[in-house]
Amino acid sequence: MPAFSRFTPLINSLPSTVPFVGPEALERKSGAVVKARIGANENGFGPAPSVIAAMTEAATGIWKYADPENFDLKAALAAHLNCKPENLAIGEGVDSLLGQIVRLVIDPAAATPMPVVNSFGGYPTFNFHVAGFGGRLVTTPYVNDREDLNGLLDAVRRENAPLVYFANPDNPMGSWWEADEVVAFAKALPETTLLVLDEAYCETAPASSTPSIEALIDMPNVIRTRTFSKAYGMAGARVGYAITTEGTAKAFDKIRNHFGMNRIAVAGAIAALKDKAYLKQVVGNIKASRERIGAIAAANGLKALPSATNFVAIDCGRDAAYARAIVDGLLGHGVFIRMPGVEPLNRCIRISAGKEPDMALLEAALPQVLKSL
Amino acid sequence: MPAFSRFTPLINSLPSTVPFVGPEALERKSGAVVKARIGANENGFGPAPSVIAAMTEAATGIWKYADPENFDLKAALAAHLNCKPENLAIGEGVDSLLGQIVRLVIDPAAATPMPVVNSFGGYPTFNFHVAGFGGRLVTTPYVNDREDLNGLLDAVRRENAPLVYFANPDNPMGSWWEADEVVAFAKALPETTLLVLDEAYCETAPASSTPSIEALIDMPNVIRTRTFSKAYGMAGARVGYAITTEGTAKAFDKIRNHFGMNRIAVAGAIAALKDKAYLKQVVGNIKASRERIGAIAAANGLKALPSATNFVAIDCGRDAAYARAIVDGLLGHGVFIRMPGVEPLNRCIRISAGKEPDMALLEAALPQVLKSL
Repeated sequence: MPAFSRFTPLINSLPSTVPFVGPEALERKSGAVVKARIGANENGFGPAPSVIAAMTEAATGIWKYADPENFDLKAALAAHLNCKPENLAIGEGVDSLLGQIVRLVIDPAAATPMPVVNSFGGYPTFNFHVAGFGGRLVTTPYVNDREDLNGLLDAVRRENAPLVYFANPDNPMGSWWEADEVVAFAKALPETTLLVLDEAYCETAPASSTPSIEALIDMPNVIRTRTFSKAYGMAGARVGYAITTEGTAKAFDKIRNHFGMNRIAVAGAIAALKDKAYLKQVVGNIKASRERIGAIAAANGLKALPSATNFVAIDCGRDAAYARAIVDGLLGHGVFIRMPGVEPLNRCIRISAGKEPDMALLEAALPQVLKSL
Repeated sequence: MPAFSRFTPLINSLPSTVPFVGPEALERKSGAVVKARIGANENGFGPAPSVIAAMTEAATGIWKYADPENFDLKAALAAHLNCKPENLAIGEGVDSLLGQIVRLVIDPAAATPMPVVNSFGGYPTFNFHVAGFGGRLVTTPYVNDREDLNGLLDAVRRENAPLVYFANPDNPMGSWWEADEVVAFAKALPETTLLVLDEAYCETAPASSTPSIEALIDMPNVIRTRTFSKAYGMAGARVGYAITTEGTAKAFDKIRNHFGMNRIAVAGAIAALKDKAYLKQVVGNIKASRERIGAIAAANGLKALPSATNFVAIDCGRDAAYARAIVDGLLGHGVFIRMPGVEPLNRCIRISAGKEPDMALLEAALPQVLKSL
């Protein structure tokens, strides 16, 4: 059956695509059964037992909407970050916040599509939102597998762009910049350019790479986004947050889905912040798993790139078709991984940290796949 | 600290308001402690034990994102509704879907703000989204405490409106139309007008008031929205769905937050659909509670309006100030209720069905409040 005939011109111009195909869809499509789920940068070490307990306890209260002001979660985050609750916005994962940020800045009614800067190969879901609000994506290449701060800055200035995205550490490459370089980049931007500093992976990164909260909290044109999906092991919960000035944080209230948060997820997030010992332990597990992935790569003649995240990009030394063949071959062995989408990053494959059984499956399958190519 | 200086003109024109103030915020503001939470049309009878069990079981899998295609939930809903999975779109509650629908139709780039029709006093969150995407709200008054189908149709034709909202049964009044009248209204609309038929409360309504799925499924300009928040007792889960043609359903994929669903919530929703016996029981409980509320109203000289929902609107026979005084007075006794926002509906108070302890608190507090006024 056809679609409604009067969607907006912008909507009619958009494809019905999914930024990422999930492992469940891959299973349905390929017939493969995923045994090692190490492709979506989920955290197989999972959340703390205290988080599971808090969520289980919250289940009986699911008949109640969550507090639309997210008062308790904001208070817990403010104490955790040493900022004010008014500096925070809460959303259904960082993906939701990114959509809201694009909507705040990119005007579909502009005379010409407004430019938005990202690295070429940077987070596709951000680009999805840029397209969805009628923005025009401007990209700069990675340099030495890192996002290029000078290139981003040049593009912002050249285009007079109102919005720029930068992930530190980076996905999909795992690379990072040091905190002082990030702060210098933020301060070099025009005040009329909003920086989305996506710190989804900051908990697994070297402390030296994450600017202090104070360093950027007074800049109305900087929004830092963080999540419970990665180090905290709660990807399926959908809890993300933004850190910015009170004024900029208030703007989210103009457009957000006020009753969008899942009540169980909020209870889990508050519990997760309390369990610092568990976070430390998981970060250690992730670090060990990154090294394990690196060793498996090396044993197969492939080169793991340095990573500050919960995944490792592995340079397979040839072209995208070769990397794609490895991804597809591993899926045939029940090992779900992913790869970057564009050149030259797509000479790599990307493997998420995981528990030892997952690593063992990877270790067994990879040489067989490489041999078969 | 100030806000970013370059938000869009539309964003700058919007207030940072919440469509509804939650009971938690009322407690923080007033110092009252809510003992009977019967104001937000939540369902205090709660979800089925089988739903709690399914959610508890799903908690350990929270490290995984939910399937972005929502395959299993769509399959379960399709079987439940007797339609195809392709006829469905899933969202973080109906509120999220309403935002997406407005975005699909209302073009902020239109030469003049596009008209959107709703009843005067109809669902505020829909209106919030209309404002948020630069639409112009056109309203028609309720007639005899029902949404006025002729009035809505006239307004659509007069304004050449691309979008109209109609809830059956209605919130905040609890009134309803019969299925054949709803279908006739849908078919009388121009094909260039999208009807949002919000059926959030259909499970608690007379069967005769809900059109069959087949009656509207071939109309690209009709989207029916439903939820697990009301009869299923899962307001805090955030699971809503839309039923429409395949073509119109596909449009949601262009803009939705693909990884927005909470994994525990999805597991709960699938379990809820299976437990038909529990749903039947709760619908019976709600019906009994509506009668109990009606009896309490009558005992206090107030008039309960007929209701097809999980709440009852009660005509207090005087003005909005009087109704407001009752709402505020009840909060002082720990009884949280709400009232409609505009005339002439705001001569009423609105009380959600609930368990007997809540009803007993209401029964004890109401005469005291009325006496004090």
